Amino acid sequence: MAEANALNAETPPELVELRHSIDNIDAAMLHLLAERFKCTRKVGELKARLGIAPADPEREAHQIARLRSLAVTADLAPEFAEKFLGFLVREVIRHHELIRDGGLDVGRPAGAGESA
Amino acid sequence: MAEANALNAETPPELVELRHSIDNIDAAMLHLLAERFKCTRKVGELKARLGIAPADPEREAHQIARLRSLAVTADLAPEFAEKFLGFLVREVIRHHELIRDGGLDVGRPAGAGESA
Repeated sequence: MAEANALNAETPPELVELRHSIDNIDAAMLHLLAERFKCTRKVGELKARLGIAPADPEREAHQIARLRSLAVTADLAPEFAEKFLGFLVREVIRHHELIRDGGLDVGRPAGAGESA
Repeated sequence: MAEANALNAETPPELVELRHSIDNIDAAMLHLLAERFKCTRKVGELKARLGIAPADPEREAHQIARLRSLAVTADLAPEFAEKFLGFLVREVIRHHELIRDGGLDVGRPAGAGESA
């Protein structure tokens, strides 16, 4: 706390308040990401078991269209929503490929090194 | 809906269910991102007004340490949490630089092209 107070002493109160909100939002997103990776890990295991390809362009196109549409109502740029999904999908595909190739230790936390 | 049904007819029910959860989580994250960008836009404007540099290594180090710690309790890899924050921070810094240089139309949705 001493360190935080020293930092705050030089930081405008308005900035401190905004950063607190950003930190709260980040914590919420982090926990949602953990849940998302639990889902995508199950998807990866299911795909490996059924011999379904890790990448699915049709599914991705559907996700992109949906998120771009949601972005408009959320007052977020559709381009950024698509970029964000791309960031997540790249991680997930890499994870699915690792599961398929038997290179993933599924006992590790979601997103560990290989991500998910 | 006809398109969705045609897709689902070929998709294992377990996969359909997992994808529905992923879509719900993505919608929640998208709305949190919109709120986050509202905050960072205000931070960018405040920094520009007060002549504070867009990048803040000390703040970023604090955010990284905090998110890595939160990731452990959320069962998420700390490496991924850091990577995710890096993805957001890169966008935000670019946005702050645009505000500072007067190149950002603040009337545009958050994250629009320049992101936030």
